[in-house]
Amino acid sequence: MTFAEQLQADIGRIESALERSLSRETGEGYDRIFEAVKYSAMAGGKRLRPVIVLAFCRLCGGDEEKALPFACALEMIHTYSLIHDDLPCMDNDDLRRGRPTCHRAFDEATAVLAGDGLLTAAFETAAAAEGLSAQTVLQCIRILGRAAGMNGMIGGQVLDMGAEHRRIPLEELRLLQSLKTGCLLRAACELGCAASEKADAAMVAAAQIYGEKLGLAFQIRDDILDIEGDAATLGKTIGKDEKNEKSTFPSLLGLEKCRALVAELTDAAVQSLAGAADKAFLTELAYSLVGRMN
Amino acid sequence: MTFAEQLQADIGRIESALERSLSRETGEGYDRIFEAVKYSAMAGGKRLRPVIVLAFCRLCGGDEEKALPFACALEMIHTYSLIHDDLPCMDNDDLRRGRPTCHRAFDEATAVLAGDGLLTAAFETAAAAEGLSAQTVLQCIRILGRAAGMNGMIGGQVLDMGAEHRRIPLEELRLLQSLKTGCLLRAACELGCAASEKADAAMVAAAQIYGEKLGLAFQIRDDILDIEGDAATLGKTIGKDEKNEKSTFPSLLGLEKCRALVAELTDAAVQSLAGAADKAFLTELAYSLVGRMN
Repeated sequence: MTFAEQLQADIGRIESALERSLSRETGEGYDRIFEAVKYSAMAGGKRLRPVIVLAFCRLCGGDEEKALPFACALEMIHTYSLIHDDLPCMDNDDLRRGRPTCHRAFDEATAVLAGDGLLTAAFETAAAAEGLSAQTVLQCIRILGRAAGMNGMIGGQVLDMGAEHRRIPLEELRLLQSLKTGCLLRAACELGCAASEKADAAMVAAAQIYGEKLGLAFQIRDDILDIEGDAATLGKTIGKDEKNEKSTFPSLLGLEKCRALVAELTDAAVQSLAGAADKAFLTELAYSLVGRMN
Repeated sequence: MTFAEQLQADIGRIESALERSLSRETGEGYDRIFEAVKYSAMAGGKRLRPVIVLAFCRLCGGDEEKALPFACALEMIHTYSLIHDDLPCMDNDDLRRGRPTCHRAFDEATAVLAGDGLLTAAFETAAAAEGLSAQTVLQCIRILGRAAGMNGMIGGQVLDMGAEHRRIPLEELRLLQSLKTGCLLRAACELGCAASEKADAAMVAAAQIYGEKLGLAFQIRDDILDIEGDAATLGKTIGKDEKNEKSTFPSLLGLEKCRALVAELTDAAVQSLAGAADKAFLTELAYSLVGRMN
């Protein structure tokens, strides 16, 4: 199977499983919340995080099917964070993945509840995982909670809010990024290892480095795209960082240095897997993200 | 120990454990989120749900200490739901437990994130429970997820939003209430049983009935207090239901019938425990809630 075929197959499985997890015909007057949740969760997107979960599970010799609930849980957490980030009191965004944001398509209260619903569904979905030991499932829930929590993604979001309209030092931007986007990417790698029930400590350490390096590369690339990208292709508002006077990697380091950094970090991510047997997919995945800049 | 002494002891343990779970000195610029979360979580309140968790664990002969993480998790979920309910796009409330609501004391974005943080912390806290089998911990996480999710509390919240400014039939109000407030109260009873690792099916069934009856009694009492209560004593805005043209149990059934119903439901809750040995605390707890109406 080529990289592209494997990626498509993974995305297909993830989207079917997500759709299944988020479907319910209640007939009891609150179906609207399921509509809103599916509107945001089934809007496409790269599915990068859940793809990484499956890929690390495969790399460790595990059964991807068993990792699927954690892949979905992580994507639900990512999606909820986008819905809440887009709210008027946060980034106040109208466009996400080429469509009106959740609070625009529905209403603000529904968007708050849809985010809450997805976050809760993430833990429900993880806790319902089958075919693994209860210890493994608990370990995965702990990984999810830590990554998504106040010392993880939410802490990063708080720093992000505090970073508007002022110039922040590179070190602070680095912390902000590692919490806001890095934690979930690292969790994706850790979840794949944990769900395989076959990863040793060296493998987990390598996976964490892959996640951290790729997470940072990915964020810098996003900052570059916000300057150079095209709203139609990206499906989201661009030039937003400059408008909000946000410190970004390009504003602090310049575009050229940023491009070099992305390449360097991607190489480092790929290098971390040097000892692993079947690393072709995760290698290509890392380079495909950089490739999108060219 | 008298009922009042036991209640005070339980509340003391719960508040210490909550405070511990939600404390962190980051020194990294995002302490504000911990302040906001503690502002809302440590604002007093009856601690009814976590008290019930401990009481059912005790009733089943379990070690309350082991149930404490689930008691805290449930209180965090309850608190997050209040923070998000109070937001301008939802109930738009300024006062909660006699103090400015979270978005008033901080700001709207912080309140959204504080709610998200508490919901995530609830699952982190539950998943970190010690001294129980991994199966039991997972079972408790499933109880929490189901009760708080879109087919539980969040579904009820959606129905509640849809029920403003129109008269709804009693049956719909009953469903709304059973989801919005009933699910968490029932979960409190179930969590206590599960964390004891000693409850048989009959005990669990009795606990569920206690939770359902008491939950409904509690909601009807709240509706009555919204009409007859005093803002200073209750620490929240009163007359809100009438202002929002909300269908309530009193508006559909009349005050007198509601008072009788509360008494009847409380008796039924207490009756469900007829077969249990040391039911004095849970019996007094149920009647103390009704007592507040007199």
